[in-house]
Amino acid sequence: MKFRPLAIALVHYPVLDRRGDIVTSAVTNLDIHDLARLATTYRLARFYLVTPALEQRTLTSRIMKHWQEGYGASYNPDRRQALDCLQISDSLDEALHDWRELNGGSGVAMLTGARHEDGVSFSAAQALAAEQPVMLVFGTGHGLAPVLYAADRPCLAPVRPGSYNHLSVRTAAAIILDRLLGDEGVASPLP
Amino acid sequence: MKFRPLAIALVHYPVLDRRGDIVTSAVTNLDIHDLARLATTYRLARFYLVTPALEQRTLTSRIMKHWQEGYGASYNPDRRQALDCLQISDSLDEALHDWRELNGGSGVAMLTGARHEDGVSFSAAQALAAEQPVMLVFGTGHGLAPVLYAADRPCLAPVRPGSYNHLSVRTAAAIILDRLLGDEGVASPLP
Repeated sequence: MKFRPLAIALVHYPVLDRRGDIVTSAVTNLDIHDLARLATTYRLARFYLVTPALEQRTLTSRIMKHWQEGYGASYNPDRRQALDCLQISDSLDEALHDWRELNGGSGVAMLTGARHEDGVSFSAAQALAAEQPVMLVFGTGHGLAPVLYAADRPCLAPVRPGSYNHLSVRTAAAIILDRLLGDEGVASPLP
Repeated sequence: MKFRPLAIALVHYPVLDRRGDIVTSAVTNLDIHDLARLATTYRLARFYLVTPALEQRTLTSRIMKHWQEGYGASYNPDRRQALDCLQISDSLDEALHDWRELNGGSGVAMLTGARHEDGVSFSAAQALAAEQPVMLVFGTGHGLAPVLYAADRPCLAPVRPGSYNHLSVRTAAAIILDRLLGDEGVASPLP
């Protein structure tokens, strides 16, 4: 199956904490590498890391630079290659704006989460990704804040609805990309 | 689709390092939680954490105890529940011995890795898991050591063969379990 260009976004604000309050979560080094390698394996065009916190953006830039230009680039070229798709964004709106600009004006954000059992099915999501450049949006902490679920943003159904459904964002993102693209699905490069 | 009981094993020895030498890798806190939550979401019977290093086994026991009995048990009950399936083993042989004992003598270890393009297909693996209690074996570091690929151990095909295929063990395990069990596949409880 052939798809339009695909992206993922990992949101650190606004997200919920365990009490349901809106917080800015900390950027995690392992999230960066796991998701960059995942995005590169599935040939995604962009991995947006979304945080408004200046010191977190600076930290992320330093990590990127280490693996792309510093000692890490020769120590582990796989990591360098993986980080090529990573882009830091101030907000989800900014990431979506960039994504649409890269795709000649079209592009849609599809939110993910464990709680939206009435969400878009995986086959409907595949159909959408064949038509439009989709940016899959993942929340850190205890999930994306309700304010992000605006009316024009489709929301993907949970991976495995049931009694226990507490996947880490890393494993959930892996499963979702594989369900959409599988063994042979191809996301197009940017136009 | 209905399967026999399923387990995963995360091997820290013998595994390869980046130079191809055999090493014992360090247990990672995040691997424990990510894979325990994954195993519980897909209702696996066991998650074997395999390491012969005594201090690593002690550390893992302390982490388990914190979340199962300590302050963590009330702070985050989801983690407690996830860790119920975790069992520490000295070696892959010991884990497999335990797995077979739990299943009345039957049970097969299926190895995973990014390099075995001639491995068992996912549909063949599903057929096997419907017949026998399968323990999926994952390597840390740069993958399982060649000595583990004994003749009687089937090896699963890579998730996504291609030019770039460097998934973390966390994301690879997630994709493999989802490919086998999907949205509705059910692993039986232990007999």
